[in-house]
Amino acid sequence: MEKFFTPKSIAIIGASRDHHKVGFVILKNLRDAGYKGRIYPINPKAKILLNEKCYHSVLAVKEKIDMAVIAVPADITLKIVEECGKKNIQHIVMITAGFSEIGNQRAEEQLKKIITKYKIRLIGPNCLGLLNNYADIDTLFLPASRLVRPKNGKISFITQSGATGSTVLDLMAKENYGFSKFISYGNALDITETELIEYLGNDPHTEVICLYVESIKDGKKFLKVAQHVAKKKPIIALKGGTTKEGAKATLSHTASLAGSYEIYKGAFAQANIIQADTLEDMFNYAKILEKSIPPKGKRVQVITNGGGFGILATDYLSRMGLLIEEPSPETIRTLKKKCPKTYIIKNPIDLTGSAFAQDYDNALQAVMKDPKVDIILLIILYQTPQLDTNVVSSVIKYNKMHKKPIIVISMGGDFTQKYKNILERHQIPCFTYPNNAASAIKVLCDYYLK
Amino acid sequence: MEKFFTPKSIAIIGASRDHHKVGFVILKNLRDAGYKGRIYPINPKAKILLNEKCYHSVLAVKEKIDMAVIAVPADITLKIVEECGKKNIQHIVMITAGFSEIGNQRAEEQLKKIITKYKIRLIGPNCLGLLNNYADIDTLFLPASRLVRPKNGKISFITQSGATGSTVLDLMAKENYGFSKFISYGNALDITETELIEYLGNDPHTEVICLYVESIKDGKKFLKVAQHVAKKKPIIALKGGTTKEGAKATLSHTASLAGSYEIYKGAFAQANIIQADTLEDMFNYAKILEKSIPPKGKRVQVITNGGGFGILATDYLSRMGLLIEEPSPETIRTLKKKCPKTYIIKNPIDLTGSAFAQDYDNALQAVMKDPKVDIILLIILYQTPQLDTNVVSSVIKYNKMHKKPIIVISMGGDFTQKYKNILERHQIPCFTYPNNAASAIKVLCDYYLK
Repeated sequence: MEKFFTPKSIAIIGASRDHHKVGFVILKNLRDAGYKGRIYPINPKAKILLNEKCYHSVLAVKEKIDMAVIAVPADITLKIVEECGKKNIQHIVMITAGFSEIGNQRAEEQLKKIITKYKIRLIGPNCLGLLNNYADIDTLFLPASRLVRPKNGKISFITQSGATGSTVLDLMAKENYGFSKFISYGNALDITETELIEYLGNDPHTEVICLYVESIKDGKKFLKVAQHVAKKKPIIALKGGTTKEGAKATLSHTASLAGSYEIYKGAFAQANIIQADTLEDMFNYAKILEKSIPPKGKRVQVITNGGGFGILATDYLSRMGLLIEEPSPETIRTLKKKCPKTYIIKNPIDLTGSAFAQDYDNALQAVMKDPKVDIILLIILYQTPQLDTNVVSSVIKYNKMHKKPIIVISMGGDFTQKYKNILERHQIPCFTYPNNAASAIKVLCDYYLK
Repeated sequence: MEKFFTPKSIAIIGASRDHHKVGFVILKNLRDAGYKGRIYPINPKAKILLNEKCYHSVLAVKEKIDMAVIAVPADITLKIVEECGKKNIQHIVMITAGFSEIGNQRAEEQLKKIITKYKIRLIGPNCLGLLNNYADIDTLFLPASRLVRPKNGKISFITQSGATGSTVLDLMAKENYGFSKFISYGNALDITETELIEYLGNDPHTEVICLYVESIKDGKKFLKVAQHVAKKKPIIALKGGTTKEGAKATLSHTASLAGSYEIYKGAFAQANIIQADTLEDMFNYAKILEKSIPPKGKRVQVITNGGGFGILATDYLSRMGLLIEEPSPETIRTLKKKCPKTYIIKNPIDLTGSAFAQDYDNALQAVMKDPKVDIILLIILYQTPQLDTNVVSSVIKYNKMHKKPIIVISMGGDFTQKYKNILERHQIPCFTYPNNAASAIKVLCDYYLK
């Protein structure tokens, strides 16, 4: 399995000089990713591609090839895979579509036979393949100008749907998420979600595993592996085809029988998999689990400079079963001494639209040592004129103590976004909407407080 | 009421030369907004402010003053309002806080007495005041560098919480929403949500009314007015303080008794008010209601170039009670003739990652005239290399026919955002997440198909 993620040489079969062709984009992206191994473009009609010598077949290459990425028309794939077998290439990423997902079961069975014969491991067909930020591997046929790759980080993503996965990557890059590995495995002819989860479970660069699935091939094995891995790191799953109408569509998509959602729900719960109901939830859960330290309990103290936001946050936290208690008398006494009488020292602590950065610092200092507070939810609305943006330094300072999870909500335009980015670079999870922060905190508590 | 939104002259009482003071920011913002009326800065300690002659009191101004914005410390407000009364200023926006929301009921009662005596209408206290894009009125004390004002449009927003309202403005500006009027009315001592809804109901520049409330002063009157206005234009309400913990916090925020959420829910339903459960929902509902034409039925045809996205959209639409039916035999025949056999011509129509702009055009042409389709949900993932961005021209072209609502989902980074912006400028509602698009379509159907 490791060879898929750190191959020393890669053949790109179907490499092309046409900029709009998949084969061209893959070759270009892999080179632009800074891949340090050897690349062999394969195309019988070209001699040079992007300044690399081009071969008419893998059989014409003398050196050993660790992995082949195949992006040729469906009707010649069998011949191509046969050649890979003869060349002793044991790892194939098959981008090509046109197999069981369009009813072409026969081609898929023949493909299966060939890879079995040559002991080839295969990802796909009908997929995007791999991204490994830690080895500069990138087999995605999506131009970097259209799909920005996320920076290095600790989230890995396994996806049955290439489109879903790739747009997730793009948005995660925009939102400053850190990424480790991405695997789009399509029809799962050979390598399935189960093996991938097992691999990522042992991957030191992965701390959170996200999964988009439409169906699971071997339920029993999946359950066993997921249960084991979920003890080490959180697995977040989003299931496609949870309704009758959606399930019908999965059949034509990845040729998968979506199965009863109730059964999946039960299995996910049994394996301690965190279930996301939407892509947005998946993003939010991954963010808090990647960035936050474990909480010691579920008492949340809200600190805000916007009353309405504090109330909305309190509503959502409370609906999630999190606890909103008054801070300790000590905290109340300290802050009442330091704050003007218009501030409200309860839960939420409302520093009002007049708040200065120093007020946030005072409040944070008090609640950090308050034994009645487990988690701090900070609402910082940067729009008020008096709020010095030094407030971010305070938040970073207290977060570095690693004593209690600090989660921040800020809503607004570019000015707000700038400070949000700074906080997130310092491992502080930031949210735009109070309800999303509350759901994420709930997931954090559920995962760590059992 | 109209005078609040189109005053010919405004006094800013408490105007200041300190850039961090509320009085300075209000003066500056009003000037920068391009307000064409006369501005009178009032400050006993200054002679000139931002190149405008400054007066020590409104009584020193000879000309008539239509409206006063008051941003002075709480303890001198009564004297100031008395002066306004003597000067015959009949419209006051009271920014100053420190009244019933901090337990100072007595000051609020005295304030009430003075305005009654002089027949003054008052917005506030403890509020941000007004924004009217159509008359360049801006009394918000939030610097434009931190809070970008949205462009002209048809959404108006009434908010009891200034912070909630202002951050909504900021995010709406970033997301290209068009805005008409914004009113933050704080403690609602005189003018309440009911009068504001009535006013906006008759405002030709307002087509969608958004409302954030923690409590409603006169339930009976509110119900009557809202019922009447909701027949003309949609009202979307978000309620703060829907839980025991949240309701406790509203008391210290705007001195309001939040009341039982169940009663509010019932009243909103009775008045045909659309209930948003989160700020994000409010944004999404406002967007679709501002941009979309009414649908004729609830049969949604999904067209996608990403299978997984199509499935997720189908799941959410179906859960919302919207109908996913097969397109007519005519549509299927036409498209099967024009498309490669890898495309799936059902519902969703999956044009796959190989889709060209022309494929979208063909599909749109067919479903626009398909009698089995009421609403078109287009998923356009711009990340694939073959998809010419001319696809946006096609969407704009078919949307201009005003025959069926077209809603677009696109997820991704800056490249995607660029085309999303173009579509939204052409009145096509665009969403990032499939579930949000589905909820918005549900609201659109609920509002128009009764």
